[in-house]
Amino acid sequence: MTDRADTASEHPRRTGPTTDPTEVERLLRQGPFHEWLGLRVLSVGEDRIELAFAWRPEWVADPDAGYTHGGILATIVDLTADWALVSRLGRGVPTVDMRVDYHRAASRGEDLTAVGEVVRFGRTLAVAEARVHDGQGRLVASGRGLYHTASASS
Amino acid sequence: MTDRADTASEHPRRTGPTTDPTEVERLLRQGPFHEWLGLRVLSVGEDRIELAFAWRPEWVADPDAGYTHGGILATIVDLTADWALVSRLGRGVPTVDMRVDYHRAASRGEDLTAVGEVVRFGRTLAVAEARVHDGQGRLVASGRGLYHTASASS
Amino acid sequence: MTDRADTASEHPRRTGPTTDPTEVERLLRQGPFHEWLGLRVLSVGEDRIELAFAWRPEWVADPDAGYTHGGILATIVDLTADWALVSRLGRGVPTVDMRVDYHRAASRGEDLTAVGEVVRFGRTLAVAEARVHDGQGRLVASGRGLYHTASASS
Amino acid sequence: MTDRADTASEHPRRTGPTTDPTEVERLLRQGPFHEWLGLRVLSVGEDRIELAFAWRPEWVADPDAGYTHGGILATIVDLTADWALVSRLGRGVPTVDMRVDYHRAASRGEDLTAVGEVVRFGRTLAVAEARVHDGQGRLVASGRGLYHTASASS
Repeated sequence: MTDRADTASEHPRRTGPTTDPTEVERLLRQGPFHEWLGLRVLSVGEDRIELAFAWRPEWVADPDAGYTHGGILATIVDLTADWALVSRLGRGVPTVDMRVDYHRAASRGEDLTAVGEVVRFGRTLAVAEARVHDGQGRLVASGRGLYHTASASS
Repeated sequence: MTDRADTASEHPRRTGPTTDPTEVERLLRQGPFHEWLGLRVLSVGEDRIELAFAWRPEWVADPDAGYTHGGILATIVDLTADWALVSRLGRGVPTVDMRVDYHRAASRGEDLTAVGEVVRFGRTLAVAEARVHDGQGRLVASGRGLYHTASASS
Repeated sequence: MTDRADTASEHPRRTGPTTDPTEVERLLRQGPFHEWLGLRVLSVGEDRIELAFAWRPEWVADPDAGYTHGGILATIVDLTADWALVSRLGRGVPTVDMRVDYHRAASRGEDLTAVGEVVRFGRTLAVAEARVHDGQGRLVASGRGLYHTASASS
Repeated sequence: MTDRADTASEHPRRTGPTTDPTEVERLLRQGPFHEWLGLRVLSVGEDRIELAFAWRPEWVADPDAGYTHGGILATIVDLTADWALVSRLGRGVPTVDMRVDYHRAASRGEDLTAVGEVVRFGRTLAVAEARVHDGQGRLVASGRGLYHTASASS
C-alpha cells in the first residue's frame, strides 16, 4: 500500500475531485519519481486519464538491445491506473496490489503514453486498469491494480 | 515480454549458469536501470538470489510523506524474481507477467533488500517469487512473475 | 497450463477458427465441467465471446448467506477469457496464469453471464480478459489470463 | 469480495481462532461447494493449513485427455490460501483478488492436496498463498490471494 500521495492536511490547496489536466499534472509532478519519468497529462475524463512519459537513458534494461526496463512499464501501469481515479478522488491513493502483462519490448528512445480506466469504483477499494503504448501506438504493456480509495477521505 | 537481457551473441564472454555473486553483479549492472537502482548482489544460490538496492531521492512518490514509489518496489520484485533463475540460466530473461502485493510503505532514505526464489522452473516458462524488505527487515512488498526461459537458449 | 482442450488428432472433425455460436457451444460442452456449469454460448465475434451459466445449489460457498463461491467466478473468468480466442483458434487452449478481482457477491439463485475479449493475441501466448455479471447486470467479478496459443497448432 | 463465509451472528457456536482440524473441517464443509470438492482438513497450524480434495468426474475439462479443469485448481488455491488465516480468524473471509499459476496438468482420477500459508497478515487485508499437488506430490498449481480480514470482526 505504498504510493501514498499527498493528503488534504499536507496540501491544503488541493482541489478535490477534478478533471482539469493542468491541476492533475501539477499534483502528479509533486512526486519526484513522476517528475523523473517526464510525466505529462494528456487528458482527464470521468474515470479515465491519459498520460505521457519522456524516455531517458536510465530506463534501459540492457546496453545492447536497449529495451526499456519492465519496471518502468510496471510503474507506468500502476500510476496510470491509480490516477484514472482522480476524477472521483482528486488525488492518487495507495496501491494494494497490481498485475502487469508485458506484450512487446519498448525500444531505446521511445517515449510512452498510457491510458487508464476505472473498472470498478468502491468507497474502500477500487480496481482500475491501464494500457501502455509506444511512439508508434503499439501496445507494449497492460495491467490492472487494486487501489485503497478509503485513504482518500482521510 | 520486455526486460530482455543480453544474449549470447551480444556477450560472448558470459559464463552460463552461475552462482558466483561477483559475476552475477557484473551481469546485472550492465543494465543502466539496475545501476541507477544501486543494485548489489548479496548472495546467489541454487534457484535463489539476494539483492540490495540503495535509496535515492528520485524514488520518492510524494514530497511530504516521502515514501518510495510503488513502481520502484515493483521493479525490485520483478528483477529479483527474474534473477533467481540465474543459477540455471546465467542471465536475465524477459518477464511475461507479474503480480505485486504492497504490504507497507518504504520510508524516505531506506535502502532495500530482496530475496528471490524459483517456484517452478520449466524450459519454456518459469515462475519465481520475491520478497522486499526495508532496512529494519520489515516486509514491504512481495510478488511473483512468469519468465520466458526459452529465450535464454537463443 | 491446465485446461487443455481437445487437439486436432483427438477431434478430427473440429472446424478451425469459428464464430458460429452453435459450434462453439458444442465444443465447450464436451467438457464435463462446462456442462456442469450449465454453460451456453450467447454470442461469438472476432476476439470476443459472451457466455451464460445456470446457477446450481452446489455453487454456494456458505449455507446462510448463500453466495456463489469465488472459485465458480474464477472458473468463469478463466474459461470466458480463454474462449474469446476461439475466433482465431477454433478451440480452448491451456491457461498459463490468471488474475481475478471480486467486485460483489453473487447471490443464491443468480444465473451469470460473462463477456470475454482478447487484449493481445500472439502466436505463442495471448492475454484475454473477462467480466462476469449477475442477473441484474451488476459486475460481480473480472480478470485476465495468459493463454498458451502455441498449443492450438499442435 | 465474494466467498463471504458465515458470520458470528449466523453461527453463534463458532469457536473463534482455532487450529483444531476437526473444527476447521466442520466449518469448511458447511459450504456446499466445499463438500462437493470432497474437502478434508489434513492439518492446521499457525498461519498454515493443509487440505485434501477428492477427484470427481465433473472436474474434467475435456473428455479425451481428461485433465482437471483450471477452475477447480483456482478454487483450491483460493480457498486454501483463505483458510490459512483460520488460526487467526476462526473462519473464512471474502477474497478480494487472486492470482493463479498453472504448472502442469492434473490427470483424470487424481486426488489433490494443497498447502496454504500466510504471507502477511493485517487487520484489514491479508495476503496468503497456496500450492496444489497431485497424488504423486507434483506441483500442479500455485498462487496467492488478498483476503478481507476486516470482515471477520463484523
